[in-house]
Amino acid sequence: MRDPDSFLAAAADLLGQRGFTRDPELMDAWLTDWRGRYTGRALALASPASTAEVSALMRLCARHRVPIVPQGGNSGMSGGATPDDSGQALVLSLRRMDAIRTIDRDARQAVCEAGVVLQTLHEAAAAERLRFPLTLGGKGSATVGGLIATNAGGTQVLRHGTMRAQVLGLEGVLADGSVFDTLTPLKKDNRGFDLKQLLIGSEGTLGVITAATLRLLPEIGGRVVLWAGLNSISDARRLLLHCEARAGGEMEGFEVIPAHSLAAVLDHLPDARSPLAGDHRWHALIELVGGPGEADRLPALAESLLGQAFEAGLVEDATIAANEAQAEQFWLLRDSISPAERAIGPAMQHDISVPVDRMAAFVEHAVPEVEARFSGTRAVAFGHLGDGNVHFHVLAPQGAPRGEWEDGEGKAISSFVHDLVTDWGGSISAEHGIGQMKRDELERLGDPVAMAMMRSVKQALDPQGLLNPGKLVALAPGASSN
Amino acid sequence: MRDPDSFLAAAADLLGQRGFTRDPELMDAWLTDWRGRYTGRALALASPASTAEVSALMRLCARHRVPIVPQGGNSGMSGGATPDDSGQALVLSLRRMDAIRTIDRDARQAVCEAGVVLQTLHEAAAAERLRFPLTLGGKGSATVGGLIATNAGGTQVLRHGTMRAQVLGLEGVLADGSVFDTLTPLKKDNRGFDLKQLLIGSEGTLGVITAATLRLLPEIGGRVVLWAGLNSISDARRLLLHCEARAGGEMEGFEVIPAHSLAAVLDHLPDARSPLAGDHRWHALIELVGGPGEADRLPALAESLLGQAFEAGLVEDATIAANEAQAEQFWLLRDSISPAERAIGPAMQHDISVPVDRMAAFVEHAVPEVEARFSGTRAVAFGHLGDGNVHFHVLAPQGAPRGEWEDGEGKAISSFVHDLVTDWGGSISAEHGIGQMKRDELERLGDPVAMAMMRSVKQALDPQGLLNPGKLVALAPGASSN
Repeated sequence: MRDPDSFLAAAADLLGQRGFTRDPELMDAWLTDWRGRYTGRALALASPASTAEVSALMRLCARHRVPIVPQGGNSGMSGGATPDDSGQALVLSLRRMDAIRTIDRDARQAVCEAGVVLQTLHEAAAAERLRFPLTLGGKGSATVGGLIATNAGGTQVLRHGTMRAQVLGLEGVLADGSVFDTLTPLKKDNRGFDLKQLLIGSEGTLGVITAATLRLLPEIGGRVVLWAGLNSISDARRLLLHCEARAGGEMEGFEVIPAHSLAAVLDHLPDARSPLAGDHRWHALIELVGGPGEADRLPALAESLLGQAFEAGLVEDATIAANEAQAEQFWLLRDSISPAERAIGPAMQHDISVPVDRMAAFVEHAVPEVEARFSGTRAVAFGHLGDGNVHFHVLAPQGAPRGEWEDGEGKAISSFVHDLVTDWGGSISAEHGIGQMKRDELERLGDPVAMAMMRSVKQALDPQGLLNPGKLVALAPGASSN
Repeated sequence: MRDPDSFLAAAADLLGQRGFTRDPELMDAWLTDWRGRYTGRALALASPASTAEVSALMRLCARHRVPIVPQGGNSGMSGGATPDDSGQALVLSLRRMDAIRTIDRDARQAVCEAGVVLQTLHEAAAAERLRFPLTLGGKGSATVGGLIATNAGGTQVLRHGTMRAQVLGLEGVLADGSVFDTLTPLKKDNRGFDLKQLLIGSEGTLGVITAATLRLLPEIGGRVVLWAGLNSISDARRLLLHCEARAGGEMEGFEVIPAHSLAAVLDHLPDARSPLAGDHRWHALIELVGGPGEADRLPALAESLLGQAFEAGLVEDATIAANEAQAEQFWLLRDSISPAERAIGPAMQHDISVPVDRMAAFVEHAVPEVEARFSGTRAVAFGHLGDGNVHFHVLAPQGAPRGEWEDGEGKAISSFVHDLVTDWGGSISAEHGIGQMKRDELERLGDPVAMAMMRSVKQALDPQGLLNPGKLVALAPGASSN
């Protein structure tokens, strides 16, 4: 950094009292990620109120070579918004930029600033009889900017895609302070590289997202939620193909849950009960959604889907949620798996994907492989089978001490799982991103050609290495950095 | 270039007789674009048979600093595949790489080499009771690689998106010969920047696309094609919104045609007749498509759409094609506009887009504006209203000499149209790309921030400037080039 006092004075002057602080008490909450895995230090916390302020701040940072850690709702899964412990970086919070600039009901578009919280967007869309088709557990804190920077997923990707598919236009500030603006969306535009795609999923390493134009869909007319008990995850895969062939346009979610996870949830939630009376090795949660005027035919569609699945021997038992309250209960079981598994004891969690058609075989291969190699552990895989993305958790042997086990055998397990998923042509980060958590694993296992391309692009767009240093991609040795 | 003789000998040795020629007769057809607008010269024509050969050739070119012009079906609209007249560049034809490596019916995916012709892909998909949801006039010659490199559009973008939306995975060779391979598609993968998005639409300036994994859809169960006569393009916009609200999931095309273009087509095609008896200032061609089992309800849906549109005063007259033959006739009228307008006399053609909700107003503003400023001309706009993309043709005054008018007043008209569309927040290239034709206009009118980003990325991934020089984006002054 060049001349810190002069930088701090200029930044404070630029952003004013509401926009700039070095008060440890005010900064403290934003220096640790929400799961408490990573803690860093910061030079200051900047909270600009406008794109113009972000731009001026970035120019200042470029001049003084001050690194920047962009932060939205601080609800990321990989430590991507937590600064390192050098205390040299500025945390750049986008939370004050929380305006929904416009919602256009005809065009079905919303222009949101980066700090808009996902739940706020859901509510604003609903008020226009529209909906934003992406949701996830952290919707009460996750922001639009963070969701775009991490290309967030969730439970509706099967039908609607990840955050990338929702972004029609983008505004961001680059390392030199210039403002990249494609907020006015064009459905067709072939004027060269689609640069906004570079910023989406770049985890703050190529620019700071300040606003986006997002697509909205017509509100839901109704939904039907099904629960099926299955003998194997291969049957779940066959059931998925069956549902895609007959209800591909209506199927919005297809989640799989192993018996162990359901039992853990039933232990964890005192009032919960299993949707089915008997025991099954696997369960599938399926949601069908119809637009206004289409919802009436969903129950018949669901009945016929299940009837055919019974006949084909794909399901052992199944039920359809009788009402919205029961549908919510089914989803609560699914959404409670992570906390329920965590309550049992320490576990290594892996957010992995393989090609959709290989996921069942992968799970059938990987679970016994891991359990055999690491004795006393238990491996469970649950989640978005329809996306080829499961959360693969490996639970510690009973009585293993949390921190010690995680740092020892846990790390070996993660390496083993990542090797395996790479061998199967898959990804070590399906939806949670790389951040600081998986950076070394990406270096170890990433395709060297892709890694070299990423480093070249990073070097080209952030030559001083000021944007979220230490995250996602390491610069080439010898490249300039702070 | 370093040591041309040694390069030529090594390239000939690498590719063999079928893969390498300097014979002017064999090269000739590939040195002029299909419309005959651009002609260049080439050092040689290379036609590698495999990705490994492309990779080895690129390494050789990098070592000898030989520029490369990648070429697919040579059916581009902007001269992007035609070399300059220096004679220094190698034309790299992908036509020999024409294998469909696999089609997976369950996963609905095809892995195609770059040289696969679009029509061949359509037929291969149909044989599996699937379809590839992108088509355009040049389907008999356009190749998968060229379609991806130019992010091609066509008449089905409204529902299915441009080529970008069809690409699940990509294989390409970079400037240094390294092979970027994401052919195994992962529905979710957040391991950093989505690099394949950079290659899509980069017109051969960042890498040579050698293969792709493309998504396929279930075959069509049936379609219904409607033709409506309208009073204005604003009514067409209202009709579009009406159809989207009530049949958004089924509407696959929404094209607009002004009276002048329909008259030109009826003059041009001796056996053609207008679908409607009376005269109308505007026409809309609408296609509804349903999957297997859904087609039966399309006629009733079409009837009800039109009934409501009549009641709302949106249409003056309308008809539904009675059978598939008539549906083909309706589309033939649409597809014949360009040749029919060209037969009248010289015209400047502009492939432009503005935000979808502004297109009707843009046309109503731009047509009289152009005709007033350039006296004797006639402006016609037709095409993909649903995408905010029209082909905006300005016909020369009667008797204007073709070449002379195009180079004189024609150029002024194009500048004027491009200025106008830029003022309206639109694109000077909606679907045809930049190539050599619009490079200077993009330099003149492109957003400086986006242009600087493009130059940085180009410099990073092609530091010697060997990939399709002179196309799309000029390097910064002083940057290395051949």
